[in-house]
Amino acid sequence: MKIKVMQKDFYDAIQKVHKAVSNKTSLPILNGILLKTVNNQLRLVGTDLEIGIESFLDVEVIEEGEVVLPADYLNNILRELTNQMIQLDVDDSYNTLLKTDSSKFNIHGSATEEYPSLPEVKSEDSFTIEQTKLKEMIEQIKFSISKDDNKPFLTGGLMVLSDNQIELVATDTYRLAYRKDRVNGRGMEDIEIIIPNQTLNELNRLMDDTEEVVEMKFSESQILFKFNELSLVSRLIEGQFPKYQQVIPKSNNSKVVVNKDDLLRASKRAALFAKENSNIIKINLTSDRLIITSNAPDVGQAYEEIQVSLQGKKTEIAFNANYLIECLKSLDVEEINLELSDSLSPGLIRINKADNVEYIYVIMPVRSA
Amino acid sequence: MKIKVMQKDFYDAIQKVHKAVSNKTSLPILNGILLKTVNNQLRLVGTDLEIGIESFLDVEVIEEGEVVLPADYLNNILRELTNQMIQLDVDDSYNTLLKTDSSKFNIHGSATEEYPSLPEVKSEDSFTIEQTKLKEMIEQIKFSISKDDNKPFLTGGLMVLSDNQIELVATDTYRLAYRKDRVNGRGMEDIEIIIPNQTLNELNRLMDDTEEVVEMKFSESQILFKFNELSLVSRLIEGQFPKYQQVIPKSNNSKVVVNKDDLLRASKRAALFAKENSNIIKINLTSDRLIITSNAPDVGQAYEEIQVSLQGKKTEIAFNANYLIECLKSLDVEEINLELSDSLSPGLIRINKADNVEYIYVIMPVRSA
Repeated sequence: MKIKVMQKDFYDAIQKVHKAVSNKTSLPILNGILLKTVNNQLRLVGTDLEIGIESFLDVEVIEEGEVVLPADYLNNILRELTNQMIQLDVDDSYNTLLKTDSSKFNIHGSATEEYPSLPEVKSEDSFTIEQTKLKEMIEQIKFSISKDDNKPFLTGGLMVLSDNQIELVATDTYRLAYRKDRVNGRGMEDIEIIIPNQTLNELNRLMDDTEEVVEMKFSESQILFKFNELSLVSRLIEGQFPKYQQVIPKSNNSKVVVNKDDLLRASKRAALFAKENSNIIKINLTSDRLIITSNAPDVGQAYEEIQVSLQGKKTEIAFNANYLIECLKSLDVEEINLELSDSLSPGLIRINKADNVEYIYVIMPVRSA
Repeated sequence: MKIKVMQKDFYDAIQKVHKAVSNKTSLPILNGILLKTVNNQLRLVGTDLEIGIESFLDVEVIEEGEVVLPADYLNNILRELTNQMIQLDVDDSYNTLLKTDSSKFNIHGSATEEYPSLPEVKSEDSFTIEQTKLKEMIEQIKFSISKDDNKPFLTGGLMVLSDNQIELVATDTYRLAYRKDRVNGRGMEDIEIIIPNQTLNELNRLMDDTEEVVEMKFSESQILFKFNELSLVSRLIEGQFPKYQQVIPKSNNSKVVVNKDDLLRASKRAALFAKENSNIIKINLTSDRLIITSNAPDVGQAYEEIQVSLQGKKTEIAFNANYLIECLKSLDVEEINLELSDSLSPGLIRINKADNVEYIYVIMPVRSA
């Protein structure tokens, strides 16, 4: 194999697939990135068998071929080179010479036969959604994904696809984040899949803030995302996701509209005095004020108030401040609806954007002293 | 005590003194910051007994007084407030109310009697130097300060002050960094002191990139820096610093002028292949090229070349790449002089800026396989 490629293009492509390469694999070949010429392009693949990323890059192909090169070395060398023409020569023993005008790197490459193929994902159903929209949806739910490996079905986000509609849900049983939006495409039947946390994170990192769409396809146990000259294929999580609709309260007695930034900042300040008290802050709704209080026995107390106009009954509830803060940080809106019932019922943050576009966040209350 | 002050001003002042406050002190009062009204100013003090920082801030004094408040809480509250007028009320039991229009924080403050006084540093001798110059000097030597607590006299930078001249030196016995410059002031006799690493770091952080000067005063065991409405006082390290002049080679057989960025980048790339080989890279000087090579037995080899014009004999030497890289990163120049003798003699990086302004870096060679 013999190719010529600019450093910047090569480095960008390597970075895309590099994140799928695991450092702690028992299969040494998986520490590498597969490079293969395909017509006038270079195909790059990285995988840890859970997730696989494939990227294509226009290069000058002088001689066709393929090789597996150590991912970290390749990534680090390219990072430290300035933008200039790079030549890559691979001989029959997979010894590779990466050279520029003033640098030469001999790298022992590996044969490509042992490198696993990415699973093929063929489905009748195909959905497309704007990258910027899917990014926002992931941002708004991912912090609620459980880290508890004893409940694997909670360690991912639930995606539900039906005619022109997409729902993304995550819960760690202490809070639940739900986002609904419009999507292009309709399936033979509704699709309900659980996508691993790592896959959502990688997807989020790789997508741009553009209206360009992502195409999604499904098989029994895999999902495929195609966008920006790259493919990301991931296994799905098996198991039954909780019936999330039952968790969302149907009615609430006390509703206020609050400026999101004011509530976020007040919560952060009150949280400073809640650290030694399991992060518990109290929220009081009075007719014209939302009051947040917290208590650090050795240090003192915090008191915050925000002007609001209450619809419904006065009420009081205690939350883990972090659950409130993480949600508010993820929201790019001016105002949110806060809906409470009583101190033993879940609280709710709601944003109504447009028809069939909705964000709901449910927080379980805690008992405060 | 009762004062009014804008959040931004208060937060800036707290941040300056906060770094001198240690979290792991056995004396609880030292977790606090001392606040005291002095005329129309607020005096703020933080100290861990090794280093003390004092800052002054214009405030509206409604009632005079003083208090010690927990540093972390104060800093975090102020960080999370927007820029607005803050009122601070301290009662006779040192209970403190920090309030804005919408926030109130009760903080249990402490009496100020137990708070240690900063040592007074009175000296006849006084030197001044531009902040931007002292910053640059510290940057160029601090990475060579030893982390080995068994040789405390190497865990700081040596400062030598004589008539209108300042020298700053650091060594960990593997390399030595030396910087000489002009200073304003002359002493009764030459001053040689060892300033702790932490003090140089704090000083570096607190100084601006301006021509405004720092004033330096000395006592037997302390140094005082005054600048920007603040004072930093620090203990000095006892002991005898090595005779650094003996370490600097007097003559070298092989000299080249090299572009600093080219050498830095080539060294970084070669270092990628030196990780499993004690970071050893080899430098070869030929008549028209500087060649760097390294070898990672399992992965491959790196080869870098830079065009130079050699004065003197061809030679070869091996260095720890990190020692070369750290020095080059600290230098804000286009070209450096590299001076070598043979593979067993120290190498030298030299920058001649102007009369009596000089930078010298000595690196011990290593034996390469």
